[in-house]
Amino acid sequence: MRSSELDALVLTAPSNFRYFTGLDSQFWESPARPWFLVIPASGVSLAVIPAIAEVAVRQCFVGSIQSWPSPRPEDEGVTLLASVLQSVSRRFGRIGFELGRESALRMPVLDFMRVRELLSGVEVVDGSPCIWNVRNIKSQAEIEKIRAAAGIVSRAFEVVPSYAKTGMTEAEVCRDLTIDVLRGGAHTVPYVACASGEGGYDQIIARGSSKAIRDGDVLIMDVGATVDGYFCDFDRNYAVGRVSDAALRAQDAVWRATEAGIAAARPGLKVSDLWKTMMAVLHEAGMRGNNAGRLGHGLGLQLTEPPSHCEADEAVLKPGMVITIEPGMEYAPGKLIVHEENIAITEDGFPDLLTVRAPREMWRID
Amino acid sequence: MRSSELDALVLTAPSNFRYFTGLDSQFWESPARPWFLVIPASGVSLAVIPAIAEVAVRQCFVGSIQSWPSPRPEDEGVTLLASVLQSVSRRFGRIGFELGRESALRMPVLDFMRVRELLSGVEVVDGSPCIWNVRNIKSQAEIEKIRAAAGIVSRAFEVVPSYAKTGMTEAEVCRDLTIDVLRGGAHTVPYVACASGEGGYDQIIARGSSKAIRDGDVLIMDVGATVDGYFCDFDRNYAVGRVSDAALRAQDAVWRATEAGIAAARPGLKVSDLWKTMMAVLHEAGMRGNNAGRLGHGLGLQLTEPPSHCEADEAVLKPGMVITIEPGMEYAPGKLIVHEENIAITEDGFPDLLTVRAPREMWRID
Repeated sequence: MRSSELDALVLTAPSNFRYFTGLDSQFWESPARPWFLVIPASGVSLAVIPAIAEVAVRQCFVGSIQSWPSPRPEDEGVTLLASVLQSVSRRFGRIGFELGRESALRMPVLDFMRVRELLSGVEVVDGSPCIWNVRNIKSQAEIEKIRAAAGIVSRAFEVVPSYAKTGMTEAEVCRDLTIDVLRGGAHTVPYVACASGEGGYDQIIARGSSKAIRDGDVLIMDVGATVDGYFCDFDRNYAVGRVSDAALRAQDAVWRATEAGIAAARPGLKVSDLWKTMMAVLHEAGMRGNNAGRLGHGLGLQLTEPPSHCEADEAVLKPGMVITIEPGMEYAPGKLIVHEENIAITEDGFPDLLTVRAPREMWRID
Repeated sequence: MRSSELDALVLTAPSNFRYFTGLDSQFWESPARPWFLVIPASGVSLAVIPAIAEVAVRQCFVGSIQSWPSPRPEDEGVTLLASVLQSVSRRFGRIGFELGRESALRMPVLDFMRVRELLSGVEVVDGSPCIWNVRNIKSQAEIEKIRAAAGIVSRAFEVVPSYAKTGMTEAEVCRDLTIDVLRGGAHTVPYVACASGEGGYDQIIARGSSKAIRDGDVLIMDVGATVDGYFCDFDRNYAVGRVSDAALRAQDAVWRATEAGIAAARPGLKVSDLWKTMMAVLHEAGMRGNNAGRLGHGLGLQLTEPPSHCEADEAVLKPGMVITIEPGMEYAPGKLIVHEENIAITEDGFPDLLTVRAPREMWRID
């Protein structure tokens, strides 16, 4: 914050609130009430929150708490937040909000503008680089939570062939997988994407549908599950019955691209070079395209965090970063195969694999 | 939109995107890429989305699609969205964004400001009243989805005493309940709050903790589960072993306040009067306070939607609105009891109960 010349940071996003206080709540599903955490450049943090949250936040890591009776649409914490910020000691006259990259303000924009007007003599600037600088480097304790989540999902993926059968719908397989992940000890399963199609799939972001899986399909499931709020995020492909040789070759290519990505992911490497390393394998294997726009990303308290493994991202890998290695390619029109593992970047250079590495050949569903 | 003098609405929130397109995806967990849906005052809707989303959105209800290769932090859809908006036919010179009440923009604020600058001669205004006017009134099909979710959770709540035992942790009971809700057919379970304490609890927003439930506790679980994206949102209280008479009396009071709320919830009633009806019962029963700030709210594609049943909300109940009836009170220091049901407001005046009404006496866990 000193190098960014900020007197305080104001945080509204659930992941930022949790990062700095430890609060474990899904109350964020209700958008009725904004929450604010003020981190001054010196001194203790201050939660400016709706009264309903006070008891729960009091049990968290927070310096002090001020609350307002909410909902109160005519003044939903606006004047209280502004008065708290006015009292923050000033050195630079600048306060950072979550305004920039991969950030969104969890409050009405009109209320943000009112707060800004009330802050006389203070410049409101983007605090997101400052936040990502801290959050991007995980402690060993954070890495262990992601490893725990990844381990649970790895085991759940492995037993899918014991219950998934031709004729089940995508949604049914996803439901059984989700239940297994919860039974395994994950706290929440906020992300399950699924797709299937003959020899590949045409997208990877929708939830499992009522389409039945059929002989010749490749089925993918992509799971983001949490332990203490920390996400794993990886997928597995399954060969349903007998799939085409072209699909098997594409699977082998993304598996090899993943190997290359994991081997390359050492401190000091630019993520754009990590991207190039994987792209070389995919291109050589006949890649037609990849509309994901990147071959992996950071993860932590969000399913995805910066950086993005793509040509334009200038980030450099550092020890403590946790990233996905996620090569995928369209090998024929409308036929994608995507692969994914999660790793931590280490001091000694050998990547720490947090997932149980997928076998080179797809698991088979009969 | 005509009465609000809007030429177009720009939507970024997952619930709004789903409402107007039908897309079933949890990809929103990744904040890396914003999505935009443009609804012009006349003509078809236009999705302005990252390339990764194109195939999935093409299968949805949308007029046309334009995409950009994303992630591209230097221009994350900003110029594309601005050029699309420039081409919208103009009558009022006003475009609505999600800027106001219970709304948040799912895009970086700095990018929103850039879009606004690029829109020469166009006033960017708050479109949220316009959106809530439509979303607040549910069709019968929407109500049936909420009824389906509420039915599944009602059945899951009822069988909790068959497996929950003294000594289990809150988190364990919540996990088993969540699994039951998924087995019952809910698509997702984004919200499970839980608390327990001797004769009552001191907050209702945290996730179930590692605290064991003990003889004399009242245990509450509050669940938001979805069917096709539509939420139910209600809680149930359980008496663990033998609870105090004061707790039983408080439970009876919130049960009676719920009865009064359901009976009063007819078209034409102000939600502030609905609040007063419930408050009268609670006050008469010795209510000390209630930090929730309201006694219920709307629900639908979000766990909570406007209105808020409180003194300040000027909303009037209309047929098709789906609301929670949620009286709660602190009857002794640090001892809350909260009750909740979900209803639809009907033309004929008789509220349509979507949950299976809780018994007057708490279920018992031994």
